[in-house]
Amino acid sequence: MASVGIVGAGTAGLHLGLQLVQAGIPVTIYTNRTADEVGSGRLTNSVAHHAVTIDHEDRLGVNHWPVAEFGYDSHHHYFGLPDPIVFRGDFARRSRAVDYRIYQPTLMADFEDRGGKIEIRDVDVPDLQGLSERHDLLTVASGKFTLGQFFGPAVGRTPLPGPLRRLQVGLWTGIAPNDPKGVSIAASPGNGDLLEIPIYSFQGHVTALLFENVPGGELEKLVDVKHDDDPKAFRDMVLEVLRTHYPLTYARVDEAAFGLTDPKDLLQGEFTPTLRNDYAQLDNGKYVLAVGDIHSTLDPIVGQGANSASASAQVVGDAVLEDPNFDLRFMQKVADRRRNRVEAAFDWSNLMAGPPPAHLFQLVGAMAGDQELLNEFTWNFNYPDRQWDILATPERTAAAIARSAASKGAPARA
Amino acid sequence: MASVGIVGAGTAGLHLGLQLVQAGIPVTIYTNRTADEVGSGRLTNSVAHHAVTIDHEDRLGVNHWPVAEFGYDSHHHYFGLPDPIVFRGDFARRSRAVDYRIYQPTLMADFEDRGGKIEIRDVDVPDLQGLSERHDLLTVASGKFTLGQFFGPAVGRTPLPGPLRRLQVGLWTGIAPNDPKGVSIAASPGNGDLLEIPIYSFQGHVTALLFENVPGGELEKLVDVKHDDDPKAFRDMVLEVLRTHYPLTYARVDEAAFGLTDPKDLLQGEFTPTLRNDYAQLDNGKYVLAVGDIHSTLDPIVGQGANSASASAQVVGDAVLEDPNFDLRFMQKVADRRRNRVEAAFDWSNLMAGPPPAHLFQLVGAMAGDQELLNEFTWNFNYPDRQWDILATPERTAAAIARSAASKGAPARA
Repeated sequence: MASVGIVGAGTAGLHLGLQLVQAGIPVTIYTNRTADEVGSGRLTNSVAHHAVTIDHEDRLGVNHWPVAEFGYDSHHHYFGLPDPIVFRGDFARRSRAVDYRIYQPTLMADFEDRGGKIEIRDVDVPDLQGLSERHDLLTVASGKFTLGQFFGPAVGRTPLPGPLRRLQVGLWTGIAPNDPKGVSIAASPGNGDLLEIPIYSFQGHVTALLFENVPGGELEKLVDVKHDDDPKAFRDMVLEVLRTHYPLTYARVDEAAFGLTDPKDLLQGEFTPTLRNDYAQLDNGKYVLAVGDIHSTLDPIVGQGANSASASAQVVGDAVLEDPNFDLRFMQKVADRRRNRVEAAFDWSNLMAGPPPAHLFQLVGAMAGDQELLNEFTWNFNYPDRQWDILATPERTAAAIARSAASKGAPARA
Repeated sequence: MASVGIVGAGTAGLHLGLQLVQAGIPVTIYTNRTADEVGSGRLTNSVAHHAVTIDHEDRLGVNHWPVAEFGYDSHHHYFGLPDPIVFRGDFARRSRAVDYRIYQPTLMADFEDRGGKIEIRDVDVPDLQGLSERHDLLTVASGKFTLGQFFGPAVGRTPLPGPLRRLQVGLWTGIAPNDPKGVSIAASPGNGDLLEIPIYSFQGHVTALLFENVPGGELEKLVDVKHDDDPKAFRDMVLEVLRTHYPLTYARVDEAAFGLTDPKDLLQGEFTPTLRNDYAQLDNGKYVLAVGDIHSTLDPIVGQGANSASASAQVVGDAVLEDPNFDLRFMQKVADRRRNRVEAAFDWSNLMAGPPPAHLFQLVGAMAGDQELLNEFTWNFNYPDRQWDILATPERTAAAIARSAASKGAPARA
């Protein structure tokens, strides 16, 4: 029986670990934080899990947050042009967001209850060789910078020179939900985007506001102004940004109730989206496999990080069960199988976070008059590879628009 | 509706064309021989289709040769050592061989009956650009040497310097079938291998003898002696080779009835197994996709050519139906999806046709005492990727032997 070591206890590490213990494989997860520390720590993100990820949670027996209660139905789009564009895409099946300080400790407990081992320790590059000798397969599913350097930037891809967006995410009370319940995706052209996400946290159903701010735009203050210096001024600044840039969210704010749920429920910063190599070889000849964020660090603008991590973990889990020989052949098979999905999530996220190309505007324009195309775009948050089939080139976008129009008997392109 | 052009009417071209016309896509196959010319021509090969390929024929509605009547059950192995090794592997589901001069014209007729177009013409490299402009996607599924050069040897792989075996294949009467009906795979160490295949041809159920002769070995005469110079002497030479090198086949020969079914039912020659690039770009910017033999030319020692071609065609067909945008992204997706299966068939065939490595002997030794492992090896003629999971390295072979032993409660490796 192959033994597997996993460095990191995020979605990739936990989903992989749970799949393998379910199959009776001994797994140890190495992480530097106990479940209690995760649970009592700072907000980590505001990511939603889409239906395909929740399906995998069902298979893993860890779907503790049924979508009927915790999920949402729609994407409410707003483009703040002089003549604003507003439309709504509906999911075929619900997505949901749960605070990772609840999600992750719960899955850590599930993992241990089912016989998985969690060892609390720091792991850095010099530790990998020793760990590799404890296990038949060692995977790294941690976001640690030096471990990322170990795998190195993906061969054949040009690294991004820096962050595409500067981020603030926090949990807030006092915002009435959308109807139907959903995520708001609002653009303030030239300044940034707001993702307003219904999320379940320690205080129940609250609202995550993820501000995706354009570097050099007027909303950078959301990242640079520090909350703890003057909590009241900070709240007023956020409220003012909603009022001036994101009016449809502002319209649902009850100012008397509006506030950060907790000083810890806030995160500010930026990073460079990065695609790294699938695997690297240690001096002892063994290969170490990258899974999740360490493999592809995504800007959160279309919320793909956790979903990509889960999908990637599943490819690895399936491969371990099929072919427990952890040599170069294994690594290459895993790389081939997940490349399209992982890279599509990366490329699509970068397209949405970067300067918008003309064909994105064309798609938006077409979706405003084509509910089917809009719902397909929405549903494709489950399938970034299909989304990238539509968005990878102007020709592909034009073909998707024409196809959708033709399917309705409307005139296609001349 | 995307229109697809296919150069070549072998298994790859026909299976791809049939899948696409089934989905309502306009397809033209370009081939230099009419169905009548194929049917009245020289023997082309003696390839068997395995269950996964027959499953695909069922989906395509072209399984005209049900395995109950035309199929076989087993591989009868013989190793002509001083103390011969004899064992038999059984398929979970039957394989079957039909003379391609029957198979190919039948599928050409099916294809045309269903609305596919066949255009009889020679196609060479200078024609590709013009054809590419008639269609949304142009694929090449022909074995023509110059078209192979157009795609070029696969980047990242070392080309083989020359043929691994020199070949003679013919159809014969006067050999009683094996019991259970099956293919004999007989080794005359240092000299070559004989594959004796029950095949359905114009004269009913006959026997194909495929002699895989080692260059420099004493059986090269099977390739160099010309039948038409002296048919009787040729027949006697083959009979003598059976008697001296392949005694278990010889034991089933009725000398009075033994003979080539027809002078055209014989093929002699050799070629270099070659893996080529998945696609190439024309001067007009369009990509041309390689499918089947043009992509991977396999030594027939484990009969994978047609099965690999069908599997590859299916990847292409599925991709066309999913994402009819025939750009670089499409080509790379196809390449990623089929790489493991296509390269495994190539690598496994070369392993079997080349000088046998020690771990192949270890597998043979283990299979002689482990019917389950032997049946797995046999069934894996359907799944060359799984076979290569076992044979790619000595470590993998040892692990497979140990796993199979452990599954029976027998002691694994110390």
